[in-house]
Amino acid sequence: MKRYERYAQEITALIKAQTLRPGDRLPSVRQASASRKISPSTVFEAYYLLEARGLVEARPRSGYYVKPQALPAQAEPGTALPGPQSTLVAISDLVFEVLESTRHLDVVPLGSAFPSPSLFPLDKLARGLTPAMRKLEPGRMVEDLTIGNARLRRQIGLRYAMQGAVVDAEEIVITSGAMEALNLCLQAVTQPGDVVAVESPTFYSALQALERLNLRAVEVATHPRDGVDLDSLAQVLQRHPVKACWFMPNFQNPLGCLMPDSRKQALVDLLERHHVPLIEDDVYGELYFGLERPLPAKVYDRQGLVMHCSSFSKCLAPGYRVGWVAAGRFAQKVQRLKLMTTLSTAIPSQLAISDYLQGGGYERHLRQLRQVLASQQARALDLIARYFPQDTRVTRPEGGYFLWLELPPQVDALQLHRLTLAQRISIAPGHLFSADRRFSHCLRLNYGYPGDDRLEDALKTVGQLARGLCGGPQGAA
Amino acid sequence: MKRYERYAQEITALIKAQTLRPGDRLPSVRQASASRKISPSTVFEAYYLLEARGLVEARPRSGYYVKPQALPAQAEPGTALPGPQSTLVAISDLVFEVLESTRHLDVVPLGSAFPSPSLFPLDKLARGLTPAMRKLEPGRMVEDLTIGNARLRRQIGLRYAMQGAVVDAEEIVITSGAMEALNLCLQAVTQPGDVVAVESPTFYSALQALERLNLRAVEVATHPRDGVDLDSLAQVLQRHPVKACWFMPNFQNPLGCLMPDSRKQALVDLLERHHVPLIEDDVYGELYFGLERPLPAKVYDRQGLVMHCSSFSKCLAPGYRVGWVAAGRFAQKVQRLKLMTTLSTAIPSQLAISDYLQGGGYERHLRQLRQVLASQQARALDLIARYFPQDTRVTRPEGGYFLWLELPPQVDALQLHRLTLAQRISIAPGHLFSADRRFSHCLRLNYGYPGDDRLEDALKTVGQLARGLCGGPQGAA
Repeated sequence: MKRYERYAQEITALIKAQTLRPGDRLPSVRQASASRKISPSTVFEAYYLLEARGLVEARPRSGYYVKPQALPAQAEPGTALPGPQSTLVAISDLVFEVLESTRHLDVVPLGSAFPSPSLFPLDKLARGLTPAMRKLEPGRMVEDLTIGNARLRRQIGLRYAMQGAVVDAEEIVITSGAMEALNLCLQAVTQPGDVVAVESPTFYSALQALERLNLRAVEVATHPRDGVDLDSLAQVLQRHPVKACWFMPNFQNPLGCLMPDSRKQALVDLLERHHVPLIEDDVYGELYFGLERPLPAKVYDRQGLVMHCSSFSKCLAPGYRVGWVAAGRFAQKVQRLKLMTTLSTAIPSQLAISDYLQGGGYERHLRQLRQVLASQQARALDLIARYFPQDTRVTRPEGGYFLWLELPPQVDALQLHRLTLAQRISIAPGHLFSADRRFSHCLRLNYGYPGDDRLEDALKTVGQLARGLCGGPQGAA
Repeated sequence: MKRYERYAQEITALIKAQTLRPGDRLPSVRQASASRKISPSTVFEAYYLLEARGLVEARPRSGYYVKPQALPAQAEPGTALPGPQSTLVAISDLVFEVLESTRHLDVVPLGSAFPSPSLFPLDKLARGLTPAMRKLEPGRMVEDLTIGNARLRRQIGLRYAMQGAVVDAEEIVITSGAMEALNLCLQAVTQPGDVVAVESPTFYSALQALERLNLRAVEVATHPRDGVDLDSLAQVLQRHPVKACWFMPNFQNPLGCLMPDSRKQALVDLLERHHVPLIEDDVYGELYFGLERPLPAKVYDRQGLVMHCSSFSKCLAPGYRVGWVAAGRFAQKVQRLKLMTTLSTAIPSQLAISDYLQGGGYERHLRQLRQVLASQQARALDLIARYFPQDTRVTRPEGGYFLWLELPPQVDALQLHRLTLAQRISIAPGHLFSADRRFSHCLRLNYGYPGDDRLEDALKTVGQLARGLCGGPQGAA
């Protein structure tokens, strides 16, 4: 963490605590420099960063001021209360119907699960492909048809070590994206008919995986800010023969919630007492806006019950399809499932990413990416406050690129989806995020397209259409 | 087919029919040129080709002669008779134990499932990677996260059209190698507990896939030269509720058998009458030594019951992990399973292969590859005849890179595997190729390593060790 980042973080905390309120002037550069014993340029850098994040604004010849915050006007959603029973999942048809309708370049991708590819160093990665493959000794081409390139596994192991997790490189399997990793883990610890606990709402791909393997889902109440409710989980573990939990402790999709580290530890403890494996989906963990990378729950794993899955698809290289899992005591089982189903992950992709990591620059890229996304979130929240129905509740995640909106109950998000699609705008209706389709008045919005200047018009249009569905004389917020 | 190839083929047929016998002189260049109305250089090219294939030899100032054929000394194996019952499969542990022990560069890879990477245009492919990715518009990087790059699917569709199969590009799903394609197909048409018919012996990956999905295998008698015995299959279909057949009509692994086209048609007809889908594994189809590519059974498919799976891994680009399936009436189901399990195949791999196909040169590469493999087979057969126990039976496939050996019954191939491995030589023991481990005195040998001058010593060693296991005073053949 650099000095200017630390100072920016302090100011952010003051704004969040409402010590500094909209319209307040920030300490002047001279003042801050003197009192905090930092150089004026450090103060400037901190204020530029806060400006980029949409928190403050410069007024010519006057200084920096806390921006009028649209946020306090809108409440956050509450914790949903899922039904107590486990259910067989049948969500796939709907998911495919919705996703297929939104997969066109001319559709504004507010419903997309990916951030804009323009955020990634795609050209640098592409330039690395040919040299990486040319220096590969041909004999290794077949020898490398394994559970993963050895150097890439070591590099990933090193990143775990930096986070304080003890992960042997031998425990890591390189997969075709996190999705394969998650599917392999699920298969390693369940049999058809078993019960798996998921968040509520949960990522539709988790539901699809359960459906594919004929598993039953039991949903656990999940707080939009702090993640899985551990009391509810304890009850679920009492009532159901849960064979695995599939959770996303860091910036959950779709809520964006971030489980505090102490709660992660309690989660791992609870699951250890019940001998239940945790499939941890951590694909957004690197996209934090705060001071430090939130820890994976894997850090607290002592018994090898946590299967930590992640990938480079959301933060570096979509399309290269390189993910991984550190599967703890299930590592051998997962490795064998990998060899039996897709044998090996594409070697050009693995080598190009390994070379990129080796060359440095990944941390710098991530810092820029986080900054852009944080500033995009502020912009999106502002637009939502202006254009959406006034009772709209919205999350304010501390990372990632999704917002979760709870619209007035009379709005049917699937109907809204059809209306917005007619305007060439996609959204992800709440129906997709639960086996029992409870979130019918909710939607997930992707703000990870900063280069796309259609965003403002699109959000305005979606907001107006939502207001239209409210029936009554709903004014702007 | 070029003129010299056609003439070489005619001579080959004469040798096979024993019209030309070992020691016979081939027609002189002048004679052949005059009688066949081809240029002398065409005759020379044909004789060079036959020499490369190990069929003839040049004697200085005398001409070309049919080489002493070791082959007639050794019989081909007979058709195995599998048990009538279906069995749950439990083969994986053994397969992994054997494969893991052989995965080192210093082990002579007679047990490998891949041909030598030196046979492939890896440098040309590598050089194509960076340009292919740099010309990809970033927006397409996410849009292309689908069941396959559209141009590559069209190119594959075109190759089907050349073979006479009507396959809509929309029916094709690009997969992470044929292995993923086969696994997805199996999952699309079965439920746990179902019965699947396989060849006997069969490729261990098929057995592993059945094991993973809790399916039962019923093995069908398979002729080492002509493939699946259709009478036996008809009986199996009467007796068992078969939900799918997983067959390899072209150069089956491990037998190398090639089902005649008429028999493929009869196979498709039979399965249509029973409404049973055929999962056709055709990864070796391009590696024929004869005049024309053997047709896939898919050509005879009228009801969309044939799911044709193949890949570029065995004939162009191992390690790129690009395969595909044309899944007929099950296409949508397979597409969705693909999206749910690995989402998309690595884009760099897809684009590099698509550009390579576009650039031409694939056919020339395949011609060279076939020629090298054919000549390698002759060399391997010769060595086996010299060094192996005299009762050894061996297949003489018309394509691919595997030989299947039936050793005297007292030889335990697993024991032989352990002995050869101690000499840093791998073999694939017959135990791997059947759910009931019937082929305990058989083994599969890979002759696809022409650049590897350890081959002769290795085959000699394996032969001597096998003779040692025969107990009695077994001399050389």
